[in-house]
Amino acid sequence: MEKVRIGVVGCGYWGPNLIRNFIALNDAEVVIVIDKEQDRLNHIKSLYPNVHVGVNHFDLFNYDLDAAVVATPPASHYEIALDCLDNGLHTFVEKPITLNSLDCKRLVDLAYKKKLTLMVGHTFEYNPAVRKVKEIIDNGDLGDIYYVDAVRVNLGLFSPDLNVVWDLAPHDISILHFLLDQDPVSVQAVGEANIFSGKNDLAYLHLQFPDKITAHLHISWLDPRKVRRITVVGSQKMLVYDDIENMEKIRIYDKGVEKPPYTNTFAEFQCSYRYGDVIIPNIQFTEPLKIECQHFVDCILDDSIKPISSGEQGLLVVQTLEAAERSMKNGGQRHFINEDELDISTMS
Amino acid sequence: MEKVRIGVVGCGYWGPNLIRNFIALNDAEVVIVIDKEQDRLNHIKSLYPNVHVGVNHFDLFNYDLDAAVVATPPASHYEIALDCLDNGLHTFVEKPITLNSLDCKRLVDLAYKKKLTLMVGHTFEYNPAVRKVKEIIDNGDLGDIYYVDAVRVNLGLFSPDLNVVWDLAPHDISILHFLLDQDPVSVQAVGEANIFSGKNDLAYLHLQFPDKITAHLHISWLDPRKVRRITVVGSQKMLVYDDIENMEKIRIYDKGVEKPPYTNTFAEFQCSYRYGDVIIPNIQFTEPLKIECQHFVDCILDDSIKPISSGEQGLLVVQTLEAAERSMKNGGQRHFINEDELDISTMS
Amino acid sequence: MEKVRIGVVGCGYWGPNLIRNFIALNDAEVVIVIDKEQDRLNHIKSLYPNVHVGVNHFDLFNYDLDAAVVATPPASHYEIALDCLDNGLHTFVEKPITLNSLDCKRLVDLAYKKKLTLMVGHTFEYNPAVRKVKEIIDNGDLGDIYYVDAVRVNLGLFSPDLNVVWDLAPHDISILHFLLDQDPVSVQAVGEANIFSGKNDLAYLHLQFPDKITAHLHISWLDPRKVRRITVVGSQKMLVYDDIENMEKIRIYDKGVEKPPYTNTFAEFQCSYRYGDVIIPNIQFTEPLKIECQHFVDCILDDSIKPISSGEQGLLVVQTLEAAERSMKNGGQRHFINEDELDISTMS
Amino acid sequence: MEKVRIGVVGCGYWGPNLIRNFIALNDAEVVIVIDKEQDRLNHIKSLYPNVHVGVNHFDLFNYDLDAAVVATPPASHYEIALDCLDNGLHTFVEKPITLNSLDCKRLVDLAYKKKLTLMVGHTFEYNPAVRKVKEIIDNGDLGDIYYVDAVRVNLGLFSPDLNVVWDLAPHDISILHFLLDQDPVSVQAVGEANIFSGKNDLAYLHLQFPDKITAHLHISWLDPRKVRRITVVGSQKMLVYDDIENMEKIRIYDKGVEKPPYTNTFAEFQCSYRYGDVIIPNIQFTEPLKIECQHFVDCILDDSIKPISSGEQGLLVVQTLEAAERSMKNGGQRHFINEDELDISTMS
Repeated sequence: MEKVRIGVVGCGYWGPNLIRNFIALNDAEVVIVIDKEQDRLNHIKSLYPNVHVGVNHFDLFNYDLDAAVVATPPASHYEIALDCLDNGLHTFVEKPITLNSLDCKRLVDLAYKKKLTLMVGHTFEYNPAVRKVKEIIDNGDLGDIYYVDAVRVNLGLFSPDLNVVWDLAPHDISILHFLLDQDPVSVQAVGEANIFSGKNDLAYLHLQFPDKITAHLHISWLDPRKVRRITVVGSQKMLVYDDIENMEKIRIYDKGVEKPPYTNTFAEFQCSYRYGDVIIPNIQFTEPLKIECQHFVDCILDDSIKPISSGEQGLLVVQTLEAAERSMKNGGQRHFINEDELDISTMS
Repeated sequence: MEKVRIGVVGCGYWGPNLIRNFIALNDAEVVIVIDKEQDRLNHIKSLYPNVHVGVNHFDLFNYDLDAAVVATPPASHYEIALDCLDNGLHTFVEKPITLNSLDCKRLVDLAYKKKLTLMVGHTFEYNPAVRKVKEIIDNGDLGDIYYVDAVRVNLGLFSPDLNVVWDLAPHDISILHFLLDQDPVSVQAVGEANIFSGKNDLAYLHLQFPDKITAHLHISWLDPRKVRRITVVGSQKMLVYDDIENMEKIRIYDKGVEKPPYTNTFAEFQCSYRYGDVIIPNIQFTEPLKIECQHFVDCILDDSIKPISSGEQGLLVVQTLEAAERSMKNGGQRHFINEDELDISTMS
Repeated sequence: MEKVRIGVVGCGYWGPNLIRNFIALNDAEVVIVIDKEQDRLNHIKSLYPNVHVGVNHFDLFNYDLDAAVVATPPASHYEIALDCLDNGLHTFVEKPITLNSLDCKRLVDLAYKKKLTLMVGHTFEYNPAVRKVKEIIDNGDLGDIYYVDAVRVNLGLFSPDLNVVWDLAPHDISILHFLLDQDPVSVQAVGEANIFSGKNDLAYLHLQFPDKITAHLHISWLDPRKVRRITVVGSQKMLVYDDIENMEKIRIYDKGVEKPPYTNTFAEFQCSYRYGDVIIPNIQFTEPLKIECQHFVDCILDDSIKPISSGEQGLLVVQTLEAAERSMKNGGQRHFINEDELDISTMS
Repeated sequence: MEKVRIGVVGCGYWGPNLIRNFIALNDAEVVIVIDKEQDRLNHIKSLYPNVHVGVNHFDLFNYDLDAAVVATPPASHYEIALDCLDNGLHTFVEKPITLNSLDCKRLVDLAYKKKLTLMVGHTFEYNPAVRKVKEIIDNGDLGDIYYVDAVRVNLGLFSPDLNVVWDLAPHDISILHFLLDQDPVSVQAVGEANIFSGKNDLAYLHLQFPDKITAHLHISWLDPRKVRRITVVGSQKMLVYDDIENMEKIRIYDKGVEKPPYTNTFAEFQCSYRYGDVIIPNIQFTEPLKIECQHFVDCILDDSIKPISSGEQGLLVVQTLEAAERSMKNGGQRHFINEDELDISTMS
């Protein structure tokens, strides 16, 4: 079998992890790595002496590549990904895919026209623990889902071209889409800029989904503890997924409340409570990034496979973030996510 | 010294704890206990054979009492407290003091006119751990306070005459007032009624205080874990108070972010981070309820002492809850708390 | 039904808990309480005005009692319990029942001759969590038991007439007897006296039971953490019982090692490992002391009921502690527990 | 500067970590890797195409090397290390350095004669958390050390040529030597072979050091939880080092007991207790293996630097393990560690 020939743009914080994983795949080869910083390229060279390097993403197009991986700061995603698709490369872009939905729409359209794979790096969709949560939900073990509460906080590095919502919320929004098989309808959001005026470092988002399901996100760069926790509450059972835990990432609580079928009078008001066992399922762990990289290669090698974290999914995340921004500017009022859709459809 | 003679109305869930603590005080005496349920009265009789019992709160007024303690379901607080004050008794009312601010205003006015102590059972203001948090804040150890995040969730017993906000949020609102020495200005709130239509079992409140401090409350009766945690983030240090912990209730994190004094260009954008030690201060524990009961008795015996959790504080909590209700009905829009103040001042 | 009339000797640290529980029973009555300290008697009087008090245990015999409860310092257990049995009272003695096995043997013999109930306060045998562990073991869920590891440490109050082994190990030895339905055969022990010369504040005991089961106890008054944890390892599953946990006291690990049926050569050496789910069973909690007190009363009212924590069990614990003391004095050598039995049989 | 040219023997479980770290050093170069398994060599080749490979450790001597790293199964350590030293190579051997002290003594003697560095892979001596613990002890913060309690248990992979004591206890024994700057004097040990007859999978070791300090090790391959915890109890403070914790590895408890200067009578018996704050010091983390590898290279490049984990330290660990084995065979009796010393001195 021919190996998929890959060029990676950006080897700062996250890029080296992508490079390491693509190199370890049997059916992929990292041909060239691009970065503006020479010392980062030197570091890559010392680890992988046979990889070519370059300082400009146009250097990619001098090699006979099949695909590009874009792991640069988000502000440059759109321009680089556009050039890659334009030059006929299947393209993987780190999250958030772009900084506005219009740009993202153009990438999706271009990939569609050129029949190229466009994939976004929503890593958690490839995380065995998240997949186990989805399996538990899909089995019906939790009953009907009432709501999801997600907390993703730590003392985080402020990034110059993102606020905390664009940095951290893509993870939760993509996880929610993956778990619920639904897109959010509306957002209410509050954001605080405690350190730099105008740059939110703390935010709370409340999402409404079809079927009365809601989700609440607590996002912060300014918290003493590192927390990555998602609580899923259903009519039968409840579940907590804690990604910080090494061994016991998921707990299924056999707890619930059942309302009586009907109540004639207020005096009859009562529920029955169930307090049962807690189960911590064993999860066979594999590095999510490895699964993600393999999936990108699989999509390239086999036309019939579509990326789970597709460009369209990236677009949904960006549209949700935009609606959250609008809500924050309007005192937390409810904003619909498809307002964007309308704008885009008239513009494109 | 004469003992303060007390009558207790309501000995269901919380009443017996109040009775036990008042009986244990040297300068108080529980003369009579009132409850509609005979088996509860029998239980009290078996524990304290010398206490009188009755089924109607008017029975209180046949005994020569100094004070009344009202621990009945909240819907009856107003009527009973009004009668007690009317009959010249110093009155302690469990939280929430009333179910609307107008009623509460009337109690406050009546107590003022009659020169009687009116106190509300905001227990956490008498909790040694909360007082330690206040001491740490007041010392300036945390620097300027940026925000507070509070979580108070569990699989809770639905109560027929309250929703989750009125049941749980009074604790956090009174703690916030106590810690910050400030009243909230506005609220944005979302609430979900997952089990009973129209009865919120999950809510998120976002409060704004003067000086740009904000607070966020996560309140739920429908969560698999029991959490009572308050995070206080300051410009110098950060603190987590976890009331579920037996021994290590408070953790002070020597962590922080400092923004540079000014930035000429975007390229200069940067902050300095501090990751230091964690300190878990030793706290000498006393039952908060004991301190609270003694404080009520002290206020009665000494005119110069005013209750920390006064009727006015109870009013503030009720006004905040009302503003939260209005916000929930308006899609999470920001509502000001002193809208009520205006209403009340014109009405009373 | 007549109520069992009880006198309690000793109301210092633990006595008030026994008094409170016996008073709350429907078929028992605390008639008189004895203590040398007048302020403790005053405290009891303030709580229970109808109870008589006295300063000498002989005062018991002036009341028409059925039973005595001995909760004095251990050094006085033997003398008081002997007098109580001699005067025809069913007798409950706190642990350790006596400070040497000869005394204990005499109490057991006297109770036998007089057909009186003699019971020792091994509270954990009445603890719902311990009983759940026994149920799990008896169901065969763990397979064959390999070994038990127990840790019972904290920064403990040194007591003037006991060392740490006599203070804390009775709990674990009685739990082991209860769980395994077996008596230990031998002990190897090391003890350290870090603070007071000659008074152990740290000890490790290794017990051998029939059927190759072993148990190891880590006992300390000089540890920064409070730990009460028992690990039971079986051929099928493993279990951890952590009494400090509020809600999740027992965890059953579906983990195990299976050795191959036989191995011809060293090269074939291999085992199969099983890593499965963890289950935290829900436990309905009742105060163990309440169950224990009711059991004592039941044994008095119904001749056919024998105490679970009988005088004979108390004797076994004391004999095990004596063997541990001998081992400590002999450099940790293995000592058999029935060496005592032989001594006693010749003496009595 | 010339790079130290290294050959690595063994790239199974641990070898690849050593290779990765030596390659990343500026002043070292991995020239050749040896393993009996071709697929492991292929794996190394795919990662580092420029490294030579071989199947027999004699292949090392065909390259112009400065040093050898031995990471094979322990049974082959002695023979391979002997050949390496004989051929003039500085030699690093994984722990346990050999399976008996006589072999180890010969390696130490040979390295001494040939003026070569002999170092053993006691990784924890290069662990920033262990070094922080040593700093705290050396500062006198804990006061006089009373005792150390160490727990190192998990569901471990049984190894064909070691029992659990030889596999896990070297870590704790080397840590104890490092922390206390003392060698243990005697051992009392019990070991259980629950799965394979004759092969201990559970052991408890009690070590005595000069100055009345003691240490107790709990070692197991048959425990449901993974624990790596060391408690150090001093006269002033107490410390717990938990290597499983990601961020909070060390906790210093300001807790202690002080005995009175003297007691005239038994009635005066009393201590004073101190319950103070807990401090979790911030630790700057670096991979211990990186520090260890650099240290080996430094010892080679600079004659004046002696390895912290020297061959002599390896010998001490092996002698302690041998004394523990003797104690286990003699019912847990106390065995002195220098019994070996005597044997060796007469033999060599």
